[in-house]
Amino acid sequence: MKFTINRKYLSDKLTIVSRAISMYSPLPALSGIWIEVMKDKIQLTGSDSTISIQSTIYPDEINHLHIEQTGSIIVESKYLQEIVRKMDFDTIEFELMDTTLLRISNKQGVFHLNGIESNAYPELDFYQPKTEFKLSKNQLRTIVTQTAFACSDKDSRPVLTGINFKAIDTQLFCSATDTYRLARKIVQLEQPMDFNITISQKSLGDVVKSLEGEENDVDIFVDNKKVQFVFDDTLYQTNLLDGAFPDVERIIPKEFISFYQSDSTELARAIDRTNFIRKDKVHLIRLECAAKEVHLKTRSSEIGDSNEILMSAIYNGEDLTITCNGTYMLDAIKALNGERVEIDFTGVLKPFRLTNPEDQSVLMIVVPVRSFD
Amino acid sequence: MKFTINRKYLSDKLTIVSRAISMYSPLPALSGIWIEVMKDKIQLTGSDSTISIQSTIYPDEINHLHIEQTGSIIVESKYLQEIVRKMDFDTIEFELMDTTLLRISNKQGVFHLNGIESNAYPELDFYQPKTEFKLSKNQLRTIVTQTAFACSDKDSRPVLTGINFKAIDTQLFCSATDTYRLARKIVQLEQPMDFNITISQKSLGDVVKSLEGEENDVDIFVDNKKVQFVFDDTLYQTNLLDGAFPDVERIIPKEFISFYQSDSTELARAIDRTNFIRKDKVHLIRLECAAKEVHLKTRSSEIGDSNEILMSAIYNGEDLTITCNGTYMLDAIKALNGERVEIDFTGVLKPFRLTNPEDQSVLMIVVPVRSFD
Repeated sequence: MKFTINRKYLSDKLTIVSRAISMYSPLPALSGIWIEVMKDKIQLTGSDSTISIQSTIYPDEINHLHIEQTGSIIVESKYLQEIVRKMDFDTIEFELMDTTLLRISNKQGVFHLNGIESNAYPELDFYQPKTEFKLSKNQLRTIVTQTAFACSDKDSRPVLTGINFKAIDTQLFCSATDTYRLARKIVQLEQPMDFNITISQKSLGDVVKSLEGEENDVDIFVDNKKVQFVFDDTLYQTNLLDGAFPDVERIIPKEFISFYQSDSTELARAIDRTNFIRKDKVHLIRLECAAKEVHLKTRSSEIGDSNEILMSAIYNGEDLTITCNGTYMLDAIKALNGERVEIDFTGVLKPFRLTNPEDQSVLMIVVPVRSFD
Repeated sequence: MKFTINRKYLSDKLTIVSRAISMYSPLPALSGIWIEVMKDKIQLTGSDSTISIQSTIYPDEINHLHIEQTGSIIVESKYLQEIVRKMDFDTIEFELMDTTLLRISNKQGVFHLNGIESNAYPELDFYQPKTEFKLSKNQLRTIVTQTAFACSDKDSRPVLTGINFKAIDTQLFCSATDTYRLARKIVQLEQPMDFNITISQKSLGDVVKSLEGEENDVDIFVDNKKVQFVFDDTLYQTNLLDGAFPDVERIIPKEFISFYQSDSTELARAIDRTNFIRKDKVHLIRLECAAKEVHLKTRSSEIGDSNEILMSAIYNGEDLTITCNGTYMLDAIKALNGERVEIDFTGVLKPFRLTNPEDQSVLMIVVPVRSFD
């Protein structure tokens, strides 16, 4: 193995591939990046055996890749990344000294990194699932930003730690719920599809972090075992989450008895201000809605209380007092990302819906709590 | 107690005073800020009983303080800070509802915070020590930046966790050492003084963080028990560290056998690049100095090795190889803050001196180690 390459370009690819690598891998080879140099390309592979990322580099005008000799090795990801990130000069050279020693050099100096023979790398199956669809990079980013926060962070029901993608005809329903709240985004597909899969939000977060710019779509391949995201010569694959995702359509209320609307920033800031008033570590807020005035209140016998008028609020309907987790409400308002927020109520202790009046593709549901008394 | 004040102004003062407050105080009153409203001023006090900070606010055009009624209370520092930081509008009002309930309000809304009666606050002695001198804010900042990093982080010899200030005539010698390295800065005093005190680097860091702008000097008062820093209507006092600070003059070499000089950034970047090559968690580097070339090398049997030529280095003297802790060397180069760095050697295993050729007021000493073999 011997090649030269643009330092910055390689550094970016190493960052992407290393996202699959776990520091706590029981298999030493999996704490490394597998570098495979072929005649016409280099393949970088990182994996924790559930998630695998493969980035292929073909010689071009930007990466200035020049391959002199083929070969392969596995080297510790964190050391390799640190060297490539911190070296000076644009071009660096890689050379295999023997099967377990990698030489990295430039005009300035030389590094030798101990590695592992490439045949120690576990066999990864990169077969391509048959069902294929496309999303733009921005669509994928928006889905994750607007739903991932509502995933469960508890391992007791693993399927709830993921975002559910359910294709019905040309509509893709993307949902996340921890059973106390729900976030749902609808995206239009180019052609009719039919699948129902749940992908870990951690994986989706990694994919989104690895997307560069806005050009080129992301090709997505799914079957009932795994999903592959293919973009910019990078292949990201992860196993699907097992288990049936709840039928969220059932929980989404369709009829409402009263309606709140206000400036999003005002409501978000007011909730955030009371964030320290907690009871058993939970931040509970109470909205007292009346046609005349809407109040946001909090109370904790230990810390104190607060009472604010939401000046920009408009409320239509019978007087209503609702208590809920302020953090859930705040997350939902931020994810709706609108100038104004609408809250539609179905009753005192019943789930309510938050929407952005200017974007009907996304909605949030929050389940209230009895009260903070 | 009743007063109105500019929100941002009060928020900055609360940040300063809260630096003395420890989250782990055994005395509930000490986790609070003591607000004392007098006829013509407000005093905010925070303390962990070793360090005490008192900020006085006199009504002026900037703080718009308007006092209606005197009184005092102790309220939990973190809650008070969060409310004042997050409230909207410029002016907020404070009012004592009873001896243990504080009302904070503005046009938008009302907070009530549970507090503690002010007579629960421990008596703090703010007497002013007799010995007085002045430093400009920039002088004090520079002393801390150029020496604090060399303090010990171990509690086995408490005096080494501080910066020693030794006044001899009109020179103030500021030194820090963990016995493996030394940083020393000399500052000129306005008049002859005579004292030898050691102040915890944590306290000095807090003082420096609390200094705003460059105007006005810091008045410093010392005796053999404590030190007081007085600036911008804030009084910061802390107990001195007990124990005799080592006589550092004895360790500072005066005669040298060879001399290295190079670009600081080049040397710092080269050392930083090898930071991951550690042996038993210690980052050892070797400088191989010869008139022709200077090499920076590292080696760890587990990870690998490196070898770099320091292109900008000039070396005068017999060939010399020295091994030392790379982190110590890097800290020293950064603190010298010069474009070039000079290293003067006294022998293979003897302490060496680092200086900035353009600033003779500061020097660093590093003790080498035997080798990394």
